[in-house]
Amino acid sequence: MILFNSDYMEGCHPRILELLQQTNFEQAPGYEQDQFCDRARELIRAKCGQSDLDVHFFSSGTLTNLTVIGAALRPHQAVISTELGHVATHETGAIELTGHKVLPVPSADGKLTAEQVRQLYEAHHGSATAEHEPQPKLVYISHPTELGTLYTRAELQALHETCADCGLYLYMDGARLGYGLAAEGNDLDLPTIAALCDVFYIGGNKVGALIGEALCIRSEALKKDFRYSMKQRGALTAKGRLIGIQFIGLFEDDLYLEISKNAIETAMVIRRTCEEKGYPFLAPSPTNQQFPILPNEHIEALRAHFGFGAIAKVDEGHTAVRFCTSWATRMEDVLALCERL
Amino acid sequence: MILFNSDYMEGCHPRILELLQQTNFEQAPGYEQDQFCDRARELIRAKCGQSDLDVHFFSSGTLTNLTVIGAALRPHQAVISTELGHVATHETGAIELTGHKVLPVPSADGKLTAEQVRQLYEAHHGSATAEHEPQPKLVYISHPTELGTLYTRAELQALHETCADCGLYLYMDGARLGYGLAAEGNDLDLPTIAALCDVFYIGGNKVGALIGEALCIRSEALKKDFRYSMKQRGALTAKGRLIGIQFIGLFEDDLYLEISKNAIETAMVIRRTCEEKGYPFLAPSPTNQQFPILPNEHIEALRAHFGFGAIAKVDEGHTAVRFCTSWATRMEDVLALCERL
Amino acid sequence: MILFNSDYMEGCHPRILELLQQTNFEQAPGYEQDQFCDRARELIRAKCGQSDLDVHFFSSGTLTNLTVIGAALRPHQAVISTELGHVATHETGAIELTGHKVLPVPSADGKLTAEQVRQLYEAHHGSATAEHEPQPKLVYISHPTELGTLYTRAELQALHETCADCGLYLYMDGARLGYGLAAEGNDLDLPTIAALCDVFYIGGNKVGALIGEALCIRSEALKKDFRYSMKQRGALTAKGRLIGIQFIGLFEDDLYLEISKNAIETAMVIRRTCEEKGYPFLAPSPTNQQFPILPNEHIEALRAHFGFGAIAKVDEGHTAVRFCTSWATRMEDVLALCERL
Amino acid sequence: MILFNSDYMEGCHPRILELLQQTNFEQAPGYEQDQFCDRARELIRAKCGQSDLDVHFFSSGTLTNLTVIGAALRPHQAVISTELGHVATHETGAIELTGHKVLPVPSADGKLTAEQVRQLYEAHHGSATAEHEPQPKLVYISHPTELGTLYTRAELQALHETCADCGLYLYMDGARLGYGLAAEGNDLDLPTIAALCDVFYIGGNKVGALIGEALCIRSEALKKDFRYSMKQRGALTAKGRLIGIQFIGLFEDDLYLEISKNAIETAMVIRRTCEEKGYPFLAPSPTNQQFPILPNEHIEALRAHFGFGAIAKVDEGHTAVRFCTSWATRMEDVLALCERL
Repeated sequence: MILFNSDYMEGCHPRILELLQQTNFEQAPGYEQDQFCDRARELIRAKCGQSDLDVHFFSSGTLTNLTVIGAALRPHQAVISTELGHVATHETGAIELTGHKVLPVPSADGKLTAEQVRQLYEAHHGSATAEHEPQPKLVYISHPTELGTLYTRAELQALHETCADCGLYLYMDGARLGYGLAAEGNDLDLPTIAALCDVFYIGGNKVGALIGEALCIRSEALKKDFRYSMKQRGALTAKGRLIGIQFIGLFEDDLYLEISKNAIETAMVIRRTCEEKGYPFLAPSPTNQQFPILPNEHIEALRAHFGFGAIAKVDEGHTAVRFCTSWATRMEDVLALCERL
Repeated sequence: MILFNSDYMEGCHPRILELLQQTNFEQAPGYEQDQFCDRARELIRAKCGQSDLDVHFFSSGTLTNLTVIGAALRPHQAVISTELGHVATHETGAIELTGHKVLPVPSADGKLTAEQVRQLYEAHHGSATAEHEPQPKLVYISHPTELGTLYTRAELQALHETCADCGLYLYMDGARLGYGLAAEGNDLDLPTIAALCDVFYIGGNKVGALIGEALCIRSEALKKDFRYSMKQRGALTAKGRLIGIQFIGLFEDDLYLEISKNAIETAMVIRRTCEEKGYPFLAPSPTNQQFPILPNEHIEALRAHFGFGAIAKVDEGHTAVRFCTSWATRMEDVLALCERL
Repeated sequence: MILFNSDYMEGCHPRILELLQQTNFEQAPGYEQDQFCDRARELIRAKCGQSDLDVHFFSSGTLTNLTVIGAALRPHQAVISTELGHVATHETGAIELTGHKVLPVPSADGKLTAEQVRQLYEAHHGSATAEHEPQPKLVYISHPTELGTLYTRAELQALHETCADCGLYLYMDGARLGYGLAAEGNDLDLPTIAALCDVFYIGGNKVGALIGEALCIRSEALKKDFRYSMKQRGALTAKGRLIGIQFIGLFEDDLYLEISKNAIETAMVIRRTCEEKGYPFLAPSPTNQQFPILPNEHIEALRAHFGFGAIAKVDEGHTAVRFCTSWATRMEDVLALCERL
Repeated sequence: MILFNSDYMEGCHPRILELLQQTNFEQAPGYEQDQFCDRARELIRAKCGQSDLDVHFFSSGTLTNLTVIGAALRPHQAVISTELGHVATHETGAIELTGHKVLPVPSADGKLTAEQVRQLYEAHHGSATAEHEPQPKLVYISHPTELGTLYTRAELQALHETCADCGLYLYMDGARLGYGLAAEGNDLDLPTIAALCDVFYIGGNKVGALIGEALCIRSEALKKDFRYSMKQRGALTAKGRLIGIQFIGLFEDDLYLEISKNAIETAMVIRRTCEEKGYPFLAPSPTNQQFPILPNEHIEALRAHFGFGAIAKVDEGHTAVRFCTSWATRMEDVLALCERL
């Protein structure tokens, strides 16, 4: 059985295990105040072209999202997200548990537009009873989105300007950021993202690490007391070295981008095969998640050999599925899949 | 500079790195539903002698504590803890952020007695305006305690009986459990702990793991929907395999207990040296944390060579410090310290 | 200027002021444990035909909603409501602040169907990753709804059965309950509501009281420790007598129902006038809120003489407005409005 | 049976019922945006000598406290209070439910000193692991205190300066403020309180009103979006007129101070009687709460005729009790009590 269910089915890139081995008996202080975390921070700041980014390390994406949002908002404030956003759908109401409503905005392709943000903002502040509704304050986007699509530089620039105009924070969830940066046609890079977002995270869990996400904060307001928030949410890792060392591995020598390319190359083989077979797609993803719409009996047959997710029933006879590749996906496994598609 | 500041200054036991290496490219499902976590669960259940324990894995102790307490209590309920309890003092108000008050009970040696629990319980329920105060519902103990002391079997039995009588949950924070089990004079073992506590965790972060704590739930009421609570708190680890594999390493062949002994042996050398020099102790700890009271000028001199914490000012000229050993502490480093004590 | 903006534009029914006057210097204990609250409880239980209802008094509907929901749910659980539900739209995210997501269900007429509840419940529990989404646990309905419509006995019975089947709480927000009970064609009464809902409240603020709502709990699970929850939310009224006395006034001699009829009679005059003029309605309300769709220039002209709300833009030239009558509305004011409609 | 249990045993001052009667059929907008609330605000601002105070009305003191503290603090911040503070002891953990820890400071007389605040602040910010503890941010004092004692002008000035220095909010709970202002020896007045506190409330519930507290905010940071916070906590009163009208009654013609004097005069008769009998006091209260220490058998005998609270067991044979007078206490009832003391 070969698994395409998600991008965290394997361990980590071997280089990371090597580094863990080499540093194992070096003593280091706890709680992310060690020499390894500091070195990883320097590498990330350099790649982002911003020397004053605050960089913090987390064990999970949900923990990152809830800590950032919990720290950024006053109790009466809310998050703007597409109705497909991870915080809106797949975190068991983690954001609500921090006390904040997620305001869902319709989206066919997983992306939020600057125009949608502005309309929602103006509708709220134009209301005579605004205080009877939660006040929008933070814009959550994921990049790549939950449908594998990508924001263009122009779209991100427009979101940035609208957020700046309206006094909203712009937060990018980059759980799969490497796969966005490595995609064909992508016109964003880390310095642009770091310049346009108030806060964003670079995902490690799905892109070659054993564990870890790197949160980058540009907004001065958000930087203040952020370690208190981390500790209070259980997010300050005692052996922070474990995550610091991994990001050293990923950001020395561009390993992060290099290994992301494998996910894209293998995903594009799946995509082209589906196109050749005439299967339509739920969304036009240039990244490591592919969402072809397949006949149900075909899906049943594939399940004998491959693991993958069913995402949405399209009609009585067809279902959109998800094939997910990663830094570790082997081309031979993809070819085996394509043969049976 | 040799560090005795805490028990998480090194990486992990080499056996764990070996296992990570061996399993690195085996595919496994996410969110702690993989073959490694399942195997670790079986090993832990066997050591605890309880086949129906629910076992879940967490990345940090604070995250474990807040998830358990947040899941166990209704909003108006509170935690009973000593005033020194980790949840009362060193988690940035994480428990209060879940909405619950920690009711602090005085303690000279870090331990809570069954009698204290009963008195607090009866004082609350005997009050004519009980509903104007939070209702005690969960008893939090740490073992070893924050002062390195240990509950005896009789003391734990008494706590168990009082909690059962009063309808309180008994929760043991075992961040340093290995060092308690390996201590001289200890009369507790895992089966007894599992039989007497409603819920407890076996600490990995401080006892040989890179990352991870193993939470064990015996109470049927607490088992219900617990994975929802984990996901909602950001505690469900995407690559749960990482923690599962480590607990396989620690609980096959008794490695957990074996490596804990090193911490005790090295700590006892420090203890005996302090006793010989005539230094008193803040508390009589048989475990890996030693709290001698030293003259301030002596402390200054030691700081040139060693890292360690200052815990409490005892009088104008003396301070209680903490020397912490671990599974990784080298006897030669301890001897170097003792020479200068 | 005559105001039809809402049903809380006047003080209270004169009988209530009389009772306040008569009892003013009688001493009474605080926190709703007085002789007046007890008498009001007896009257309400008798009208509901349930001798074991727990009855509690609140100052506001939002405070009632958030206290009930906060007490009923574990942190990972959620509320099912129509997308128009008061808790979903007009409480500044009060429910989210208690930590719970409101799952919005589409509704054209403001009502929720048993079928919608069952589908949502089954979709959740049938999911392989249910624990990544909040767990539905409480069904919130308002009666009359936010569009003035009414549940029939059969519809409420079906909701009751579905909730019982699925282990969901059924909660009715009766902010305007009197106006539902007094409406033509209504086939519900207090005993039926009390038998079919786990918990509901009888609104006083909008139906003749100065301040106060009466919450009635039938579910044994919800009764437990409820006064703790009230105190903790700031909802236990020090001089509970103030609310108790008002409900004595409203529930002795059927005053509650009597005064509600005035709202219905005056609203029906507005309704028939709009029908005669050929104005369509946003929803077919038999209660005290009427939502005719008027030409915008007509609305402007009316505003010179009358206060009322604009609810929804229907097209470029037309807007749905709301005219709200109450126990205190004078027929002469309604006739003045109708003349200009 | 004559009750001295608390200061909310009667209804309200007759002038208030008169005003409610007179205004009953005047139409007014909801949610504290009416002409009566506006007039009350003007009166309060004038008495406080601050034209830019924001004034909001609440139904209960606990609701006021939790709304203010919930709005003022970021999640990792905490409240400094004496260990006797109402927020620390008698609100069922309402503050913890908003997510914030109350840091208790010892106090023999119910008062907090500027020196205690500074020490706690410096201890926190001087710690190497400050972020592992909640950050103190708001100082809560009650005036009169829970023991009936009063801050002097100099003490309040010192608290103000320390808070300003340290960037802490100073919040005064004035549930019984009238009784402090009317006490002999008091050297504070409303303009001084308004100038020295960032936020405070003037209690109505215990001082002549049926229901209502008036919150006054001087701090610009706290003013922002405060009505959102009120609505979200269920604290925005639909018929705000009810509270506005009462504060008009209390603050026209100095009624608030006038009626407070009765409580002081009657309390002083109790105090002098106890002094003459040689009974000691738990605290030297110049206000309406008197805490004499009585022999237990005497207490039993008194209970046949009078209601009052037992506050603290002093030794085997003696208990401190509380006799509470109010604006409504009749001198003849006090004399009856004194006769039996």
